[in-house]
Amino acid sequence: MSWKTILEEIGRRAKRASYLMAKATTDQKNNALAAIAEGLRRERGRIEEANRKDVEQARESGISGAKLDRLILSEKVMSEMVAGIEEVIAWPDPVGKITGLWKRPNGLKVGRMRIPLGVIGIIYESRPNVTVDASILCIKSGNAVVLRGGSEAFYSNQCLVGIMREGLRKAELPEDAVQLVPTTEREAVLEMLKLEEYVDVMIPRGGEELIRFVSENARMPVLKHYKGVCHVYVDKFADLSMAETVCVNAKVQRPGVCNAMETLLVHRDLAGKFLPRMKEVFDSHGVELRGCPRTREIIPCREATEEDWKAEYLDLILAVKVVDSMNEAIDHIHTYGSAHTEAIITENYERAWAFIESVQSSLVLVNASTRFNDGYQLGLGAEIGISTSKLHAFGPMGVDELTTTKFIAFGNGQIRT
Amino acid sequence: MSWKTILEEIGRRAKRASYLMAKATTDQKNNALAAIAEGLRRERGRIEEANRKDVEQARESGISGAKLDRLILSEKVMSEMVAGIEEVIAWPDPVGKITGLWKRPNGLKVGRMRIPLGVIGIIYESRPNVTVDASILCIKSGNAVVLRGGSEAFYSNQCLVGIMREGLRKAELPEDAVQLVPTTEREAVLEMLKLEEYVDVMIPRGGEELIRFVSENARMPVLKHYKGVCHVYVDKFADLSMAETVCVNAKVQRPGVCNAMETLLVHRDLAGKFLPRMKEVFDSHGVELRGCPRTREIIPCREATEEDWKAEYLDLILAVKVVDSMNEAIDHIHTYGSAHTEAIITENYERAWAFIESVQSSLVLVNASTRFNDGYQLGLGAEIGISTSKLHAFGPMGVDELTTTKFIAFGNGQIRT
Repeated sequence: MSWKTILEEIGRRAKRASYLMAKATTDQKNNALAAIAEGLRRERGRIEEANRKDVEQARESGISGAKLDRLILSEKVMSEMVAGIEEVIAWPDPVGKITGLWKRPNGLKVGRMRIPLGVIGIIYESRPNVTVDASILCIKSGNAVVLRGGSEAFYSNQCLVGIMREGLRKAELPEDAVQLVPTTEREAVLEMLKLEEYVDVMIPRGGEELIRFVSENARMPVLKHYKGVCHVYVDKFADLSMAETVCVNAKVQRPGVCNAMETLLVHRDLAGKFLPRMKEVFDSHGVELRGCPRTREIIPCREATEEDWKAEYLDLILAVKVVDSMNEAIDHIHTYGSAHTEAIITENYERAWAFIESVQSSLVLVNASTRFNDGYQLGLGAEIGISTSKLHAFGPMGVDELTTTKFIAFGNGQIRT
Repeated sequence: MSWKTILEEIGRRAKRASYLMAKATTDQKNNALAAIAEGLRRERGRIEEANRKDVEQARESGISGAKLDRLILSEKVMSEMVAGIEEVIAWPDPVGKITGLWKRPNGLKVGRMRIPLGVIGIIYESRPNVTVDASILCIKSGNAVVLRGGSEAFYSNQCLVGIMREGLRKAELPEDAVQLVPTTEREAVLEMLKLEEYVDVMIPRGGEELIRFVSENARMPVLKHYKGVCHVYVDKFADLSMAETVCVNAKVQRPGVCNAMETLLVHRDLAGKFLPRMKEVFDSHGVELRGCPRTREIIPCREATEEDWKAEYLDLILAVKVVDSMNEAIDHIHTYGSAHTEAIITENYERAWAFIESVQSSLVLVNASTRFNDGYQLGLGAEIGISTSKLHAFGPMGVDELTTTKFIAFGNGQIRT
């Protein structure tokens, strides 16, 4: 059988399952989630065994530190996974909500009803916990999911998917609501990206290369997040001690993630006072600074090139630029930013609102750290990703973003004249 | 200069214009729209001349009846265009609306603000009035637009775009908020589809072939509408005279459009009574019926093949099937339908709700004609298209669907711990 035939069969089954999932009651979906949590606890041994196989193979093929770490389903990762499921059970069910019906002049009552997207495809890299974290959000929102995990996690993923399908069966829901593509061959992935008839949206999670590959080849809509080149702009009316605290947090607290600050923009009026102070603090945290010429007149550091303004370092490196005005800061953000997260530090009311209104990023903050761009931190619950394309969802995507609305209309014989 | 260079320059200008459009006040945008309406009235002579050039060339190249008709900017088309602009001016501005701020445990106030999508690309075929109709919706919603019209309407489109750019300039808005790709060469279109860095969404309007081409080649999200294979299901509890009126309206009132009925599903319990009656009515309207074997036991007609169940006839032809149950009708819709518009005719409360909840189409109606799936008819105002993909918008897309939301957050020094 060709990959085309196999993937089409997976697509067809997912579509069929999606119609049953869309009609599932909240209780049924929560029962399935509870059965999955129970299964993950009960089958701990089997999961460990499968994971050990993956880890051994990865070691043999020479996979290194951080990448190997991500592969391991440790005690901690497993219990966070189960705790996550219990939290999702407690959330309200987004499906079926009708937010108002309006009455047309001809008496037709028209409204919008929230419904699942249908079938969600997820293509991801090494972490096997994504297999469960993503699937439970899809189940809660009444969707079917087709998973394509990384080759390193093949055995772990198969084991986890088996447990989830068993949980669905126990709740009398279709087990095909969770399916794993049984290979990681590139050809199979290409066929998966052609399933526009069956898969309503594709969500790639991983490095920039993976995301570009998916977005260039997928025929269905893609919800994607390229990178986070996040800025903090320290305005001339900033409280300097607040600016210091926020900048340190934005850069240092977890430099390897997408919502960490990569470029610091400082208003010229306080650069002379602020930059020497920050140089000292950043030095103490081991942060390497790369500055524009005006920055380098104030503090010693390497010169920033055009590449630095575009860089997502994901590391203890920070580009620094002195600007003449807030507008120059905003222009810089629109030219080099990635529409992810930007913050202004200011005590001026007018400037706070102007920044909020002018900057077109998925999260714009006043006087707070860029690190808050995250589903949990913003109060949405767990997220399936952060979208930096503006369609459908912009910013963290929670369970609501895995749904859409259809129009519904109640008539008594209306016809169009 | 290569098309790549030219298109990238158009993209860059559009992006720059989009930041100014996003900050434009409601008055500025309405002033631009009023100046455009005024310009279209004043420059009537110039528009007619340009349009005459297109029509002559089209005639010479042998373009026929309906296609030629669509090209002509008649008195009627022009005054509808201007009336449309005046209506759009009266609408509320969707941009800037904040629907609630919630407070996080750390005091951070988080909300969502409605913002324009940014840059919208529109690729369409012959009708030159689309050039104006689509652009004014983009201006009202604070977006910049890049237009690629059909080659037949080249001179008309250039003239109309010139008038719109002048209107923008008069309102002190960037004229690059409306740009026309200065060619209809295929290579230029391909380059336009690669402008993912500048264009936030691509909207193709035209035949299935155009839409498939755009969706297979675009790197940015595409809002598309393939086809409307719409169903009416006449339930066993239907009021037969209402069923007759609605079915005739759905099929006959305008058979060439996407929300016309293409397949009629009839419950077996009333098929014996309903079908002979409908055969007579449809005969009188010149509708050709193609039936399943059980239909042909009741009324004489050609046999429907598998192809008929999938067909969007856009003509006076109707496929007819007798079903054993509502579930069989729903299965048929999910197997052969296009998720566009489906209606049930029933007097039974339980079945009306079950149909509404089970059918996953962009509009699901009870006791009303499928012909209502249209922005004006549903009360959204003018539409830029009808989306049958579920992401971002599902169903008619009005001005609100040309916007998205960003997260905003007001803090007083919050950092992440």
